[in-house]
Amino acid sequence: MKGRSVGAEIFFVTLPSMKRIIITLAAAAIIASGAAAQTSEEEKFDPTQHPTFATDREDGRYVSSRAIAHRLMNARPPRLQYHEGMDSAQMAAWRGDVKTTMERLMYYPVPDSISPAKMIWSRQRDGYRIEKWESYPFEEAVVPYLVLIPDGVDASNPAPAMLCIPGYGQTKELLAGETAIDPDKSEAKDMRSAMARIYAKEGYVAVAVDNPAFGETDDLEHLVGRGVGDYVTFSRALLELGWNYLGYTSYVDGVILNWMKTQPEMRNDRLVVSGFSLGTEPLMAIGVTDPDIYAFVYNDFLCTTRERALVMTLPDEKGNRPWPNDIAHLIPGFLLEFDFPDLVAALSPRPVICTEGGMDRDFNSVHSAFAAAGAPEAFESHHYVKFLDPADRVALEKMPEGIDRATFFRLANVDPPSHYFKAEHILPWLKKIL
Amino acid sequence: MKGRSVGAEIFFVTLPSMKRIIITLAAAAIIASGAAAQTSEEEKFDPTQHPTFATDREDGRYVSSRAIAHRLMNARPPRLQYHEGMDSAQMAAWRGDVKTTMERLMYYPVPDSISPAKMIWSRQRDGYRIEKWESYPFEEAVVPYLVLIPDGVDASNPAPAMLCIPGYGQTKELLAGETAIDPDKSEAKDMRSAMARIYAKEGYVAVAVDNPAFGETDDLEHLVGRGVGDYVTFSRALLELGWNYLGYTSYVDGVILNWMKTQPEMRNDRLVVSGFSLGTEPLMAIGVTDPDIYAFVYNDFLCTTRERALVMTLPDEKGNRPWPNDIAHLIPGFLLEFDFPDLVAALSPRPVICTEGGMDRDFNSVHSAFAAAGAPEAFESHHYVKFLDPADRVALEKMPEGIDRATFFRLANVDPPSHYFKAEHILPWLKKIL
Repeated sequence: MKGRSVGAEIFFVTLPSMKRIIITLAAAAIIASGAAAQTSEEEKFDPTQHPTFATDREDGRYVSSRAIAHRLMNARPPRLQYHEGMDSAQMAAWRGDVKTTMERLMYYPVPDSISPAKMIWSRQRDGYRIEKWESYPFEEAVVPYLVLIPDGVDASNPAPAMLCIPGYGQTKELLAGETAIDPDKSEAKDMRSAMARIYAKEGYVAVAVDNPAFGETDDLEHLVGRGVGDYVTFSRALLELGWNYLGYTSYVDGVILNWMKTQPEMRNDRLVVSGFSLGTEPLMAIGVTDPDIYAFVYNDFLCTTRERALVMTLPDEKGNRPWPNDIAHLIPGFLLEFDFPDLVAALSPRPVICTEGGMDRDFNSVHSAFAAAGAPEAFESHHYVKFLDPADRVALEKMPEGIDRATFFRLANVDPPSHYFKAEHILPWLKKIL
Repeated sequence: MKGRSVGAEIFFVTLPSMKRIIITLAAAAIIASGAAAQTSEEEKFDPTQHPTFATDREDGRYVSSRAIAHRLMNARPPRLQYHEGMDSAQMAAWRGDVKTTMERLMYYPVPDSISPAKMIWSRQRDGYRIEKWESYPFEEAVVPYLVLIPDGVDASNPAPAMLCIPGYGQTKELLAGETAIDPDKSEAKDMRSAMARIYAKEGYVAVAVDNPAFGETDDLEHLVGRGVGDYVTFSRALLELGWNYLGYTSYVDGVILNWMKTQPEMRNDRLVVSGFSLGTEPLMAIGVTDPDIYAFVYNDFLCTTRERALVMTLPDEKGNRPWPNDIAHLIPGFLLEFDFPDLVAALSPRPVICTEGGMDRDFNSVHSAFAAAGAPEAFESHHYVKFLDPADRVALEKMPEGIDRATFFRLANVDPPSHYFKAEHILPWLKKIL
């Protein structure tokens, strides 16, 4: 404890309501004092010497609050984890528990009535019609979305319909291959990320939404030319209300999905939810709570987000052990109930494709769930090309604590630069199941 | 919408698990593109033109997700707000609702057994004895604290006892006037913030605790010479468990308070909780849930934290409307139940002193609560010297939306540089009530 600071007498930085200001002030002060302390009394801090939480006490107890929280989390595995060996009756009961628990965590509002959606404009594009619609999930709220209807699809010739949910920083226009929100200033472009346009060209109806606080639903960010909205402060406002970003997102997406069920040109017995990256989270929340969905396109790597938080404990050079993601991913109590692979397993026996790999451990578990549900063929998974050869994949039953983000990705067989909409796997699979 | 970005095709920054990385990448990209967009097509963004959430739609609906969350929050005033006009029976019933609701929000664990606290060392200082103790609120956890016992105070001559809870960035050693954690490397110093030492010199027993993740309870920050622990990531870990920073803090402080009730040299009919700044939050949580506490020293300005979040909507130059504080202050659902002035009102009829002002509106409300509880004399409030003259204070019934932090402080009659432990008000008041 030699030379350890016990807190300077700095009144002006102790007002809780000044936190945002002082973070900067304090940080400066701290780094200065820290540097001083190091040169004078302490050898330079080496993060690799402290990869995990440790205690040098004889009684094995921990003084670090962060270490204590880590142990509390470690001691509470998810209550509804999927376990191999369930029979199909047990699987059905377990899926029921997952559904009611997800509904509790998502706090879906039940408005007395929802005003009917309205079409705002319609334009013909090459091979399909694109329409701008508005949904009104709450009083005083508008959620705009785009609908792409292939030529020749109508009430007399309905097609399967895809709800397309984008990734972080993407917009519904990007998914639709549009270059602007204004249809008359926009042009339709073929882009690798234009999920909805790619589906429409295949003859499927595609509905493209924004993630809340992104794109057209951002606040003022577009006025300063920022491409990405501040979804973290929006999430904070929801959390104060006891709600959360995923609950809001899957509620507004679900209202649009329910609208899709009523559209004559869409086959409501062939509704597919297709999520890219961040969009896989609402896919799972809607998926386990809405039995009307026929199939799911999960376009991200599959990981256990709880395990990631528990093992990424390698500190940075300031002695901070970071958290893997921001509070838009915080659903209080979620990780006490289940994790992502459990939720994908709970989608069984409905068809699911995972396109960007993960740990073989998790895929074996999900495959076994589909087998137990009597639908072994209904789950298809693909690894990144870089990890196609099992010899190139890391075989782990448990992630080791004390790693950083890059190591986590490597151990999870993730190739971040190759993260894109995997039409090459998805389109043939859709042909097969639809 | 001219020139509005609809999201670039940036695959590698869309992996949710890369959020922390991309924030930086994206920010850079965005600022660049933003700057470009501004110079090319948009006039410079002027925050003062967008102080509040507005819509130009004829139907009055909002597209901005952040605006929608703001309206949802605005539409849900706290359920247990104190209202003038309750009689003392209604007050008692209302205090009961506040207590059970706070217990629900704090998720206090109920361990089968708690190992008894242990004394680690004891040293004589000028006019009092200082002891280091350890509390064991959970398995595998240690919470260290300091106990200051004035000369002449013992089982045959017990004294009132003060639980001293520090502010942000402060430590128990600072409150005790100690300069190091190691008692043999420390010296006792008179400091304006040495709350516990000041109490001991007055003849009261003083117990000084750390706020979790600060001081001795931090993780690795002290090894890099940082004076302030990362309590935000610790808070995030708790929130994932469905818990929160205030719940953890008031639980571990409460375990120490319960220990105080059993100490023969402390008068358990004269237990006082004394909170500075951040420390006023556990004061309120413990206060409304533990009827054994005799009185409260609230050393901060009093404000309605919900109103602050609702009115500080002036965006920064990047078009972000900030949130007033970090997630250590997030208690999901808290603001749907009550706000700080309601909690101070719910401490009635027990003596409370507020030392650093706030809005006359809130003080009038709290004073009326104490009158309704039959103890008009039990609440004492002081303004900052700068705002002693009513003519210098802003008289408002409601804070206006669209303000920034500095304006909020001015309208709340807050003088941040004068935020310190107000012994000049507290010591005479304690003499009067004890």
